[in-house]
Amino acid sequence: MVLAKNDFKMMEEEELSVALIQAQYDLLQSKGKKNAKSLVILVSGIELAGKGEAVKQLREWVDPRYLRVKADAPNIVNDRNVFWQPYAKSIPAEGQIVVMFGNWYSDLLSTAMHVSSPLDETLFDEYVESMRTFEQDLKNNHVDVIKVWFDLSWNSLQKRLDHMDPSEVRWHKLHGLDWRNKRQYDNLQKLRQRFTHDWHIIDCENEAERDQQFAQYILRAMKHCPEHLTKAKGKWKQAKVPEEILNPSTHVIEKSEYKKELKILTKKVAEALRYDRRNVVILFEGMDAAGKGGAIKRIVKKLDPREYEIYTIAAPEQYELARPYLWRFWAKLQPDEKINIFDRSWYGRVLVERIESFANDVEWQRAYDEINAFEKSLYNHETVVIKFWLAISKNEQEERFKKREETPHKQFKITEDDWRNRSHWDEYLNAAADMFARTSTEYAPWNIISTNDKNTARLEVLRTILKQLKVG
Amino acid sequence: MVLAKNDFKMMEEEELSVALIQAQYDLLQSKGKKNAKSLVILVSGIELAGKGEAVKQLREWVDPRYLRVKADAPNIVNDRNVFWQPYAKSIPAEGQIVVMFGNWYSDLLSTAMHVSSPLDETLFDEYVESMRTFEQDLKNNHVDVIKVWFDLSWNSLQKRLDHMDPSEVRWHKLHGLDWRNKRQYDNLQKLRQRFTHDWHIIDCENEAERDQQFAQYILRAMKHCPEHLTKAKGKWKQAKVPEEILNPSTHVIEKSEYKKELKILTKKVAEALRYDRRNVVILFEGMDAAGKGGAIKRIVKKLDPREYEIYTIAAPEQYELARPYLWRFWAKLQPDEKINIFDRSWYGRVLVERIESFANDVEWQRAYDEINAFEKSLYNHETVVIKFWLAISKNEQEERFKKREETPHKQFKITEDDWRNRSHWDEYLNAAADMFARTSTEYAPWNIISTNDKNTARLEVLRTILKQLKVG
Repeated sequence: MVLAKNDFKMMEEEELSVALIQAQYDLLQSKGKKNAKSLVILVSGIELAGKGEAVKQLREWVDPRYLRVKADAPNIVNDRNVFWQPYAKSIPAEGQIVVMFGNWYSDLLSTAMHVSSPLDETLFDEYVESMRTFEQDLKNNHVDVIKVWFDLSWNSLQKRLDHMDPSEVRWHKLHGLDWRNKRQYDNLQKLRQRFTHDWHIIDCENEAERDQQFAQYILRAMKHCPEHLTKAKGKWKQAKVPEEILNPSTHVIEKSEYKKELKILTKKVAEALRYDRRNVVILFEGMDAAGKGGAIKRIVKKLDPREYEIYTIAAPEQYELARPYLWRFWAKLQPDEKINIFDRSWYGRVLVERIESFANDVEWQRAYDEINAFEKSLYNHETVVIKFWLAISKNEQEERFKKREETPHKQFKITEDDWRNRSHWDEYLNAAADMFARTSTEYAPWNIISTNDKNTARLEVLRTILKQLKVG
Repeated sequence: MVLAKNDFKMMEEEELSVALIQAQYDLLQSKGKKNAKSLVILVSGIELAGKGEAVKQLREWVDPRYLRVKADAPNIVNDRNVFWQPYAKSIPAEGQIVVMFGNWYSDLLSTAMHVSSPLDETLFDEYVESMRTFEQDLKNNHVDVIKVWFDLSWNSLQKRLDHMDPSEVRWHKLHGLDWRNKRQYDNLQKLRQRFTHDWHIIDCENEAERDQQFAQYILRAMKHCPEHLTKAKGKWKQAKVPEEILNPSTHVIEKSEYKKELKILTKKVAEALRYDRRNVVILFEGMDAAGKGGAIKRIVKKLDPREYEIYTIAAPEQYELARPYLWRFWAKLQPDEKINIFDRSWYGRVLVERIESFANDVEWQRAYDEINAFEKSLYNHETVVIKFWLAISKNEQEERFKKREETPHKQFKITEDDWRNRSHWDEYLNAAADMFARTSTEYAPWNIISTNDKNTARLEVLRTILKQLKVG
């Protein structure tokens, strides 16, 4: 998508502005439609090349109310923070446009140029690769990402530094780099070339051309709104339903033994959760009434209520539906939250959304890879992901449903939805089977726990957590 | 709402837990109904009194998935930060419950105990008063606020310090206070008595009683869900419609003069916005096609796109409707955002929502005071609020509508809604008149600008901004 020099013609300002506004409104009105998209524009480049000026000019040509600009201080890219975490909340809803001055690449460059022990090239390239994967997932989910590098030759940079207006210093903090240092300049150029081959590169020698090239590029990107695919190409290969969920074990534990064990295990789990310096994500999936609530209660039993967060995942809200499926989870999982427990999770995409056709074939079939990439990025950044499927037999579920209906303070727990989901029992088993087959990874394996006996299940959940944590 | 000692009886644990869960689910299911509410529980108290333990016990008795716990590091209360800013995002949606360990009172106490130049009593009491006003507004908007102080005598505190388990130190950072210092303890008690007379105060000598008192108090609060009033008591007194909006001036400026002036003023405005150390909120209201977009474009003309944020306010989303009307603006206005421009604003409550009956009588009639309190809190915390009503004549609007319909790249700007709003012209004039009469305050006056001539209007907007800013 690099604009060839000879492709480029200056347009009349008025004409360009009208075209931009028109495209902007078409984009805005695509919301909810088959060709809906939002647009993320990443801008980076050599200091004083004029990315600020180009965006300013763009914002004058378009309707500035519908072009958001984000410029956050740089974040260090390291083991602790996933590169998308600082930007998750800024991912625009369908129809919207965001320009990101600070972005994952500028963070990476800034980290590579500054940290005392520089990133080695392999690591650098690995980061770039996971950024690309993330961007591809964004694109598949209707968030188009375009990347513009504002380039400036060494000589021109030196000239501009000579003539810099002191009042502009505020906007040219120069990223703490010494732009008079040729070696540093060359180093930066070498580094950025490791990722900019799919960027639009603007030579910023001529300012008027720079602004027009940028705006025309954005115009082209706004106008490119193809319809999204909804039908899958090939036939879907259904995985075999594992015996453990077809016929969950009915082993029962004695109450006194349970109580004794529970006391020991809840304490151990609390200690392990605190001791392990990684963040922890524990998620539960399973049929209704399988005992997710009860299991969660035991995990947190010995924790202080300030130490953990429980997320109960229901159907997405309207503003969440206008963004990539995983977005609401990106926004929730931030590095400062140590212990995160999910009562249902992102696997809704390949369970209820698949079965109820809330997601089309292309969407849910693509989701396995998206989820794997998501969990891997958590895993790579010091987060343990512990996944449970609570397996219950169909008869046991029926008994629990009936018991709930008979017990006054449990009636709220049973709704028509639950009975309807039950009527799709086999579809859920199939969906679960596919989910295990495709998302049980080395870094985030599935744990299937039979919950026909609640007490046995609770202990088993606690033991499984202990196994995945570093115990002091 | 203080529970008298003799009122209090220990309940069976099982019975209490069932009652709590029942009440919790009733609350959850009140969402969207006439008696809907959410619950904010502020907990504060003497260190080691056991507020953490009491909340932990509560969370064991209830369904922990529907009782969120927030515990943020203390914030300093000062001129720069409005006390509700750090908590805005945690205000729960209808049906939900949040326990706040960190809260505006603990921030105030912590500030009063720590700052080198202590808050004087008058200032302290002023803070408390504005907190109360805020809480009353929350309550009116279906967010019940209950406050619990965990108290402990000096002697008991000293005993608990003697026997403190080292492993618990993490949860008892003691707020940086020296709890062995009797004078400091007395000082804290004296300070908190300036605001705790409407708190529920729990004497934490006996731990089992403490947990039960707390849980029973929450139970009572959860169960208290009266229906919201919707009919206003008295007759509404309509303000007189000011001549300036009935018949806006038709003064026209010459194009060459406009261009000259514009150049000077846009530069001055950019400088003033930067120079004034306060944050700035500029908001626009007015009939459709009055020229809000054009005016905004001129304000930002000489600003760097990274310096400001434009908010285009449309109908609230579902998750916003489940919270107080002003909530989405609380969440947007944070101290780190310097220049905030609103294309429509919180005044929608007393304009479109009044006219279209999206808000009932009680709600929109109450909104004037709520908005005044909101703007005053911004004003008191170094934020200038500049409010514009762009006044256009009915004929001029019709001409602009028609022109928009005829111009291809402006058709998006005109919808059926616009024509429908136009059919309510007089109602909007009346609503605007009431709005001016009730919300044009000394700290945030309304500026009515005639926009029959767009260019005159744009210059006038810029001049008005300059008047309200400190110019260097």
